[in-house]
Amino acid sequence: MDPAALDAADPLRCFRERFALPEGKMYLDGNSLGCLPRETPQKLANLVDREWGENLIGSWNDAGWVSAPERVGAKIARLVGAADGEVVACDSTSVNVFKALCAALSVNQGRSTILSERGNFPTDVYMMQGLETLTGGRVRSRLVDPEEVIGAIDEDTAAILLTQVHYRTGRIRDMATTTAAAHAKGALAIWDLSHSAGAIPVDLNAARADFAVGCGYKFLNGGPGAPGYIFVAERHQADAIPALSGWFGHARPFDFEDRYEPAPGITRFLAGTPPILGLAALEVGVDLMLEADMAEVRAKSIAMGSLFTALMEPLCAAHGFALASPSDPNQRGSQVSYSHPNAYPIVQALIARGVVGDFRAPDVLRFGLTPLYTSFAEIASAVDILRAVMDEGAWDRSEFHERSAVT
Amino acid sequence: MDPAALDAADPLRCFRERFALPEGKMYLDGNSLGCLPRETPQKLANLVDREWGENLIGSWNDAGWVSAPERVGAKIARLVGAADGEVVACDSTSVNVFKALCAALSVNQGRSTILSERGNFPTDVYMMQGLETLTGGRVRSRLVDPEEVIGAIDEDTAAILLTQVHYRTGRIRDMATTTAAAHAKGALAIWDLSHSAGAIPVDLNAARADFAVGCGYKFLNGGPGAPGYIFVAERHQADAIPALSGWFGHARPFDFEDRYEPAPGITRFLAGTPPILGLAALEVGVDLMLEADMAEVRAKSIAMGSLFTALMEPLCAAHGFALASPSDPNQRGSQVSYSHPNAYPIVQALIARGVVGDFRAPDVLRFGLTPLYTSFAEIASAVDILRAVMDEGAWDRSEFHERSAVT
Repeated sequence: MDPAALDAADPLRCFRERFALPEGKMYLDGNSLGCLPRETPQKLANLVDREWGENLIGSWNDAGWVSAPERVGAKIARLVGAADGEVVACDSTSVNVFKALCAALSVNQGRSTILSERGNFPTDVYMMQGLETLTGGRVRSRLVDPEEVIGAIDEDTAAILLTQVHYRTGRIRDMATTTAAAHAKGALAIWDLSHSAGAIPVDLNAARADFAVGCGYKFLNGGPGAPGYIFVAERHQADAIPALSGWFGHARPFDFEDRYEPAPGITRFLAGTPPILGLAALEVGVDLMLEADMAEVRAKSIAMGSLFTALMEPLCAAHGFALASPSDPNQRGSQVSYSHPNAYPIVQALIARGVVGDFRAPDVLRFGLTPLYTSFAEIASAVDILRAVMDEGAWDRSEFHERSAVT
Repeated sequence: MDPAALDAADPLRCFRERFALPEGKMYLDGNSLGCLPRETPQKLANLVDREWGENLIGSWNDAGWVSAPERVGAKIARLVGAADGEVVACDSTSVNVFKALCAALSVNQGRSTILSERGNFPTDVYMMQGLETLTGGRVRSRLVDPEEVIGAIDEDTAAILLTQVHYRTGRIRDMATTTAAAHAKGALAIWDLSHSAGAIPVDLNAARADFAVGCGYKFLNGGPGAPGYIFVAERHQADAIPALSGWFGHARPFDFEDRYEPAPGITRFLAGTPPILGLAALEVGVDLMLEADMAEVRAKSIAMGSLFTALMEPLCAAHGFALASPSDPNQRGSQVSYSHPNAYPIVQALIARGVVGDFRAPDVLRFGLTPLYTSFAEIASAVDILRAVMDEGAWDRSEFHERSAVT
């Protein structure tokens, strides 16, 4: 496991130069905000200067703005095992969670419970709770411990809402068996792919997933606050009612009718005018990801995780880190997490030395592995620097204990 | 009313050079998509290259990304007579309509009807209908004719949802008297400012408005699909429940708790991760609008509308145009609309000759007047070209009858 040899043999190494990587940093946080593809600035400049500045409203037709949500969605579909016409890119992941919840309830009528796990990414759970409040309790939001989810599915469960790769630990949920268990009890399965699309192979249709949502700014490299996306299996589209029934989801938006009539396919899951700047940046990131072979991406991700955990073993023994991710690489997404009582200041000290990971409450150091632009040499250097930070006690300075707005 | 003299005397004429105006066009569609401020490309390039490309996640704190919705919202607040802390910029107008509807229902408990007018901008009405469907009819969506709205407010009306400046006709609703009429019946007032913010003086708090939403890409010049915004009067914020309860609206989003707890102020109306690219472009447009004196903006808008309607009078007589906007300039927003049986091909023929207005179903030609960058000379030229198109019968070519996806 010589890092230089691993880099030399890396079939994805040519992708690294496709990103404008930050100088002097080992960036292990692409699972929070992916790096900037080199092509993005030019694409955005063209959009702003030519399409907006010169052609203005003409670009809705001429530059394909009007179909951007479906066009980018169809590209994302290829990354997640969905068909053309099953995904649109739009709104935030949170808003798409709400749409998926409401759509699942409209398809699975007569059932009122949405089930998820404690410790799921908060926005998923919060959107469930908001829907419960909005409906005066007609929809029930229920959380159980992660290992109890399947057993908790009952005859009132309209849908389960689960994340395929857990944001904190990186644990992979088996999408196919979990979905099958839901279906066996008459429940639908909604999957949050935020930490899995672009990170591990995802096959929504092979798993018979019903709905899914995901994030554009992590492994898809779409930029800060990039639009998210929503998947609705083709078999549900005619019956799924989009609660957020905005004009862009109407069958004939430019007829300006008084009566909402949903568009026939996935388009009904659009609400307002699509965010064109964000979609343009997202499209560059998705296009770049589509150039890579996902089997190679996964193989490199596993190799990077194995290198990282092997190099970390002495630090676990000497400095009290505990692996918070599954030790089996096949059970782990494209990240490695460790718990440590001083996780917060250690992460800050690492950032000060150019190793960018992140802290996740209450006590986790999280390191994202992004096969398109992370090298094995960086992984080795990052662990070296962590060792130095711990050996020197460099993390225990007051400045590293100060909390920022965003951790 | 000599156009050249009017331009020479225009106190806002210096703003025109602040926009990258399209060459060879008379752009009278800034009420659909505002022009590109010259500062926007550089601002976006800096965001992309430096803040995203180099500093990555550090920019959430360092570059103020995390507070962008409140910061831009506070600037919009100054344009619409709201206070700091009453507006956030986020999501689409449609999604914000949904939040405002749900919030109004949560404040005005025991009432179940949302009232609007037929012919309102469709997305407002569609979001009402979606909420009715979602709640199984517990919330009632009711439409009446425009002149019947006030009389239709009854003891079950939780809120009225009205647009201050009508998208098709430009008719101004009196916000203060309409809101007072709603309050007199115990109903709340939600205002859609999409065609009024930046176009006419708006004073939400003087009118005692309860909620408002608006669009970032029209008179605010925020770019295609720019984020919208939502206003919640300070007196309602503690009781207003945001149905779209995403993690960015949580009191402590980075504590990753399982239980949703809304942030204390307007921040609870955020849902997902904010669209940073869109917010950056929007902020440039709002900053530019804030440099202008709104009284001067309104005076120029009225003068442009008066020039336009005066020049159009012979065409109305000769070619069958009928003013679809109020004839009293004080009752009209910053646009002039005409109905004509051949409105669609006439608009296309105008665009082919560089006069960009738009068609609104079923039979309206709509011309936006944007005082920051439209000149009186352009108005006069546009009417000259329309006269030529009509005199020559140039609109009646088959290519001008073909409908595009976006009209």
